[in-house]
Amino acid sequence: MMKQGLKVATIGGGSSYTPELVDGFIKRYHEFPLKELWLVDIEAGREKQEIVGNLAKRMAAKAGLPIDIHMTLDRRAALEGADFITTQFRVGLLEARIKDERLPLKYNVIGQETNGPGGLFKGLRTIPVILDIIKDAEELCPDAWMINFTNPSGMVTEAVFRYTNWKKFIGLCNVPIGIERSVAEMFGVEPSRVRIDFAGLNHMVFGLKVYIDGRDRTDEAVKKTARPDSEFSMKNVFFVPWVPEFIEALGVLPCPYHRYYYKTAEMLAHALEEAAEKGTRAEVVKKIETDLFEKYKDPGLDVKPPELDKRGGAHYSDAACNLISSIYNDKKDIQYVNTLNRGAIPFLPNDVAVEVSAVITRSGAFPVSVGDLPVACQGLVYSIKSFERVAAEAAVTGDYKKALLAMVINPLVPGDKAAKELLDEMLQAHKEHLPQFFKHT
Amino acid sequence: MMKQGLKVATIGGGSSYTPELVDGFIKRYHEFPLKELWLVDIEAGREKQEIVGNLAKRMAAKAGLPIDIHMTLDRRAALEGADFITTQFRVGLLEARIKDERLPLKYNVIGQETNGPGGLFKGLRTIPVILDIIKDAEELCPDAWMINFTNPSGMVTEAVFRYTNWKKFIGLCNVPIGIERSVAEMFGVEPSRVRIDFAGLNHMVFGLKVYIDGRDRTDEAVKKTARPDSEFSMKNVFFVPWVPEFIEALGVLPCPYHRYYYKTAEMLAHALEEAAEKGTRAEVVKKIETDLFEKYKDPGLDVKPPELDKRGGAHYSDAACNLISSIYNDKKDIQYVNTLNRGAIPFLPNDVAVEVSAVITRSGAFPVSVGDLPVACQGLVYSIKSFERVAAEAAVTGDYKKALLAMVINPLVPGDKAAKELLDEMLQAHKEHLPQFFKHT
Amino acid sequence: MMKQGLKVATIGGGSSYTPELVDGFIKRYHEFPLKELWLVDIEAGREKQEIVGNLAKRMAAKAGLPIDIHMTLDRRAALEGADFITTQFRVGLLEARIKDERLPLKYNVIGQETNGPGGLFKGLRTIPVILDIIKDAEELCPDAWMINFTNPSGMVTEAVFRYTNWKKFIGLCNVPIGIERSVAEMFGVEPSRVRIDFAGLNHMVFGLKVYIDGRDRTDEAVKKTARPDSEFSMKNVFFVPWVPEFIEALGVLPCPYHRYYYKTAEMLAHALEEAAEKGTRAEVVKKIETDLFEKYKDPGLDVKPPELDKRGGAHYSDAACNLISSIYNDKKDIQYVNTLNRGAIPFLPNDVAVEVSAVITRSGAFPVSVGDLPVACQGLVYSIKSFERVAAEAAVTGDYKKALLAMVINPLVPGDKAAKELLDEMLQAHKEHLPQFFKHT
Amino acid sequence: MMKQGLKVATIGGGSSYTPELVDGFIKRYHEFPLKELWLVDIEAGREKQEIVGNLAKRMAAKAGLPIDIHMTLDRRAALEGADFITTQFRVGLLEARIKDERLPLKYNVIGQETNGPGGLFKGLRTIPVILDIIKDAEELCPDAWMINFTNPSGMVTEAVFRYTNWKKFIGLCNVPIGIERSVAEMFGVEPSRVRIDFAGLNHMVFGLKVYIDGRDRTDEAVKKTARPDSEFSMKNVFFVPWVPEFIEALGVLPCPYHRYYYKTAEMLAHALEEAAEKGTRAEVVKKIETDLFEKYKDPGLDVKPPELDKRGGAHYSDAACNLISSIYNDKKDIQYVNTLNRGAIPFLPNDVAVEVSAVITRSGAFPVSVGDLPVACQGLVYSIKSFERVAAEAAVTGDYKKALLAMVINPLVPGDKAAKELLDEMLQAHKEHLPQFFKHT
Repeated sequence: MMKQGLKVATIGGGSSYTPELVDGFIKRYHEFPLKELWLVDIEAGREKQEIVGNLAKRMAAKAGLPIDIHMTLDRRAALEGADFITTQFRVGLLEARIKDERLPLKYNVIGQETNGPGGLFKGLRTIPVILDIIKDAEELCPDAWMINFTNPSGMVTEAVFRYTNWKKFIGLCNVPIGIERSVAEMFGVEPSRVRIDFAGLNHMVFGLKVYIDGRDRTDEAVKKTARPDSEFSMKNVFFVPWVPEFIEALGVLPCPYHRYYYKTAEMLAHALEEAAEKGTRAEVVKKIETDLFEKYKDPGLDVKPPELDKRGGAHYSDAACNLISSIYNDKKDIQYVNTLNRGAIPFLPNDVAVEVSAVITRSGAFPVSVGDLPVACQGLVYSIKSFERVAAEAAVTGDYKKALLAMVINPLVPGDKAAKELLDEMLQAHKEHLPQFFKHT
Repeated sequence: MMKQGLKVATIGGGSSYTPELVDGFIKRYHEFPLKELWLVDIEAGREKQEIVGNLAKRMAAKAGLPIDIHMTLDRRAALEGADFITTQFRVGLLEARIKDERLPLKYNVIGQETNGPGGLFKGLRTIPVILDIIKDAEELCPDAWMINFTNPSGMVTEAVFRYTNWKKFIGLCNVPIGIERSVAEMFGVEPSRVRIDFAGLNHMVFGLKVYIDGRDRTDEAVKKTARPDSEFSMKNVFFVPWVPEFIEALGVLPCPYHRYYYKTAEMLAHALEEAAEKGTRAEVVKKIETDLFEKYKDPGLDVKPPELDKRGGAHYSDAACNLISSIYNDKKDIQYVNTLNRGAIPFLPNDVAVEVSAVITRSGAFPVSVGDLPVACQGLVYSIKSFERVAAEAAVTGDYKKALLAMVINPLVPGDKAAKELLDEMLQAHKEHLPQFFKHT
Repeated sequence: MMKQGLKVATIGGGSSYTPELVDGFIKRYHEFPLKELWLVDIEAGREKQEIVGNLAKRMAAKAGLPIDIHMTLDRRAALEGADFITTQFRVGLLEARIKDERLPLKYNVIGQETNGPGGLFKGLRTIPVILDIIKDAEELCPDAWMINFTNPSGMVTEAVFRYTNWKKFIGLCNVPIGIERSVAEMFGVEPSRVRIDFAGLNHMVFGLKVYIDGRDRTDEAVKKTARPDSEFSMKNVFFVPWVPEFIEALGVLPCPYHRYYYKTAEMLAHALEEAAEKGTRAEVVKKIETDLFEKYKDPGLDVKPPELDKRGGAHYSDAACNLISSIYNDKKDIQYVNTLNRGAIPFLPNDVAVEVSAVITRSGAFPVSVGDLPVACQGLVYSIKSFERVAAEAAVTGDYKKALLAMVINPLVPGDKAAKELLDEMLQAHKEHLPQFFKHT
Repeated sequence: MMKQGLKVATIGGGSSYTPELVDGFIKRYHEFPLKELWLVDIEAGREKQEIVGNLAKRMAAKAGLPIDIHMTLDRRAALEGADFITTQFRVGLLEARIKDERLPLKYNVIGQETNGPGGLFKGLRTIPVILDIIKDAEELCPDAWMINFTNPSGMVTEAVFRYTNWKKFIGLCNVPIGIERSVAEMFGVEPSRVRIDFAGLNHMVFGLKVYIDGRDRTDEAVKKTARPDSEFSMKNVFFVPWVPEFIEALGVLPCPYHRYYYKTAEMLAHALEEAAEKGTRAEVVKKIETDLFEKYKDPGLDVKPPELDKRGGAHYSDAACNLISSIYNDKKDIQYVNTLNRGAIPFLPNDVAVEVSAVITRSGAFPVSVGDLPVACQGLVYSIKSFERVAAEAAVTGDYKKALLAMVINPLVPGDKAAKELLDEMLQAHKEHLPQFFKHT
């Protein structure tokens, strides 16, 4: 058995998501006896962390649970002896994401903060920090599991498995669980009765088969998804209905993020309009967050406020706490995570990071072999995987040409010329957070 | 939901194993509401079926459960509307197995009734019958699941997936569950606390990792298995201790049947001695069975008799009933079965039958990607897979040369000359049960 | 030995390329004793075939060679007993290609007559005819080799290997040989001293390694290609210089057609401008062809006219006749062809059509294992392969949804909405040549 | 162009094969202008090297060619600036091979000096020396090509590609060329008219297709090979006729060494008899060699003596010199070599050493994708590959358990008990040449 008083270190503790996480831990206290939750942030996030940490303390008190909430800027203190590390930080804060979204639009390119040019830069900023945390963890808590919710989760997972020896790492995303819930709603059943065979990449995952109570209901689910009145999307992704015949021909469930690739023109038009009018998604989120933090300050608030659900990270709490609890309790249940392929998706190499249905055990996540993607889906997935691999290499090496290569091969970028101009502008804009690219200046 | 009154058809109903199966169904009645159990046999097995069927009736009555036991020689009646089909028949009865074991010994070759020359002939006799049952099932119970315990289970599973369109098929073996229990004993824990990542082929499966309560204890398990005083075998396989350094170098758990390949000389010597003295395994089993059926006849007997455990099929009941119940209840638990690889064991083709840890659902068994076998294990597994594929082709086509090819490439057979002589002798000996090879005579 | 008087059937005999082919055969008469060249065309091409056939006769006469030139509309007569079949026809003539190029531009999409939406329709029109020819050939000349120059050559090759049992098929393209010659020019050496390891797909092929006299000069070749003043393109593809750092980062030689995917914005802008001003490429070609046929009519002309080189199909003659002669003479030299992968490009499935360096023998083309593509190139290639496979399936089945699927997943098409509109418009425009899509109307 | 005065360093210069090599160079002087041939040997081989070196000088003089023959014990001097390195040494001389053959026979095991227990020990002795030569070559002649004829050539090639960064390495064997010549004889044609698609491993290679003048004649070749009166073997391998139906069922050409695996009982019986009567092959060879060296001493001898052909290495000269000349002249012809698979044999991993038809260029050997082995052949080949990989690891690490593992998984060894006893005895017997296993004693 693991030791009884569990310690969790949450990197990016000042995130607006933290109350969800705390809520998740409180709900699962009976099976996951959390003793210490260490929120870690950097100087720039100190104030937010203070606010959110105090709310967390009130939540624990209200629940009557002996969970110690620590707030610190000392990452090493937080990591020391931790049982689980969760990462939910944002290098450069929302300001950086605003640039990730706005700069590409100048070139008529969707920023797309995970698999697009924005995601490339988010990866370039984030991966070195993740690798740094791992270096500390190898020393301070070598037995800890690291659960990553920091995007781009696929690229980060790829980088960790390719460029470190740390194996106790699982990348998490709320997209599959969001689809699962949408499907439950479509069929009017409880989510627990739905199981989906997921396979693909982060934000590029397909639901290959849909089961209700274990019975294959894929065709119906595809048809329901294809219907133009099917509002099957997520807060973070603008809803535009699919062309029904296309989804029917695909024969599997796309994820909301597929719209960036299968509806590029419309998504670009919408992003341009949104940027001109109400602001990009990051700007909207910033406003929501300001409001949220105002709420969080209220000393009378001692539960997760319902407004948090608007934030776009719905189900993160459930996904993350479920995962942690399944590891701790060796539950052997199936969850949807980012991990090494190891043959589960046969058309992809064995050694790349994938997002896939997996059995969760105390010894990690084991992908379930749900069979291959339809031929029609394979090309795009391979393209994003190529992009993720080259981007991860650029992040680790700080090699300008690799970054350019990643930018050119991204399916949203219309060629090498725009790619170079955009890359150069974004490198300058994010210079402060990309030391690996500016070593000699 | 499946219909409430479940019907199970058991082909080979007169088997001495049937009381175990019945016992398993009785124990699981709360979760698997069996209404009709149809025991099917052929004329030659009528008497045994009568005995065992009456015992089954007494067992159900004693348990106070409304399970109807049917005994019939009409396979189609039994299949009609069945929810599950289990197969446990033996074409040619134990007499055939005796030949499978004795004839090879004349050539100084181990018969080995699954992956050896004996297994080849068992496959040649069995596969056409399995394919015939499937043809009936396609018509009479197209939604049924077929659970095969008839050996050679790997070769049979290979044949079904390669030469039919029937997908609702799972091959079962008690070897992995036997190893799991041995490991539980070694560590002094309950079997439910043990999980093993199994990968390989039927009777050629390796335990890649051993977990107790989810923690990796592989190294200890390997060391314990390597100890010369470790009596880690099965009733069906003669125990000879391993060379400790070999098992440690292997680094994974072998199965008892590996002794035929990794201890060929000693196993052959023992088989020769056994045949000369107390009789081959089949002959011993025949004696045990005669005794068992005497017991079964006792009208006072209304539970599974403890003597059945000596028979060698220990845990079949648990394995089979667990599997059936997990399918029926969509349990999504991990069991060890024979099914299509689909990438789970990367070094093997995707489309071959493997024995592997799999998630059991109402929609079937999904292999878990537990990673690849050590290089040192791959060669032998590939050899047996080549053998199984060629043997399955021979069984389906009745092609003499294919059968010869299977015999020569079997690792227990010392060359083409002995292979041909042995093949010819065995073909004659089993002529009655191999119509596909004697079409024109 | 093959019989001495060789018969070649050229489907699409009225093509403006025919004189090049004839020229190629004349030059190689000493090693390839052509006796009968049968030009086959359809009624609509009768006049052109007449013109070109008469020129061919004058060319043979001028060369003093006993080559019989036959002109016919009876394809079966031409196929009967043929040793080689070459295909260079264009279903719907240049009018169809004009639509392939112009209609997509209405949606701001490049037509791209091979791997783009235009290529999809060219495939839909062409593949059924190719399969029809094969059906005839199976009956009339089962030992013939079929050499395909009809675009989209990759998609056609894929369809032939996937949907027929005809194995004696090689797809040909002049792109690799064009690159080889450009490289020769760059280095100032004879083309015969250059060898390039090609791997990829038709019009999506990469030069992985460049050798001059067998020595690896790849880095220099890449740098030369990357230079903005490097006019490394082809007649058919508008020249825009690469971003040098991109090509250097790629590290291998792209083909001219890569510009459509790596310089999409600029190529689209150019296509729109060209269409508005001097006409699309097809319209220009039509003009060139009209002029050419005027030339061909000249009874004084008895050699291949130099103007033909402007046509864009430079080196086709060399490529095709070289290939045919190498097969006939079992030369075992390396040429660049479209054939089955069989492991040569490891990241692609074994059973797909690829464009690759291959050893040419009397028994066919054997790919050379030149190693895998760089990760950065794999995604786009996989995308085009997905597209080709789905497109081939649509061509063979006439399934509307499959055609839509192919259109959506094409990297040049910006989403399902535009895809459907464009598909519908193009289906109507090409209705006459797409009977498989209009079976019930 | 390579420099004009070519230097070749032959490690193991005192070998009885050297005159063949010299003969090969003399015959190819017009295309391969050899200036310096450095024969290197160790102290124990000094006398033989002297004899053979002097014969070489007489041969060069007789041919009137300005080839300088150097004899030295200083390997570094020989390597310095070499263009080609050939290796044909034998660690422990024939005495060691005698042990490799005789000791296993005590356990009723065939020694088999390449893929058997003897081969394991030959590998353990040889691989460290090869790796040492490579270390010197990296410093002294980094541009040289290394052509290995030292057995076990497959295991050595595996070790070089897996454990060094030296890429300019080709393993050579005379088995494929021997089969090619046998086939030529069967069909009564010149060897140059025969081409065979070879695929497999060293001494475990299959001829998948046989072409005469480029036409597929496989079925006839298989039938001819299957005939009991077909004396299709090699000097080194005792001839026993195949069971015809077996070879016909196999459908491809086996190599003579396959007899050890497909005719184990008969080959063992013969080896035991031979050892008891006329001596093992090594002992016979020793006698032949003694006689040969007597011949070589004759100052009147100035050509390769015909007796050398009895030695068993027939065609080595041709194979080796052909290979070297094809590299030097960038001939791009097809030869049969040991190199990395890179997808050419799809069922084997891409990164293992295979024996395969390959295009020979100045930049190395590129495997030709000749398609996969029949299923029936795959198992044995995979077994030997597992053995080679584990054996190579044992050779490099000196790890006793790895050596035991290699011994147990060898298909000729009947179990772990015999394996351990034999291993221990052979380790002691070869102690002097296995420093890596006796580091601490």
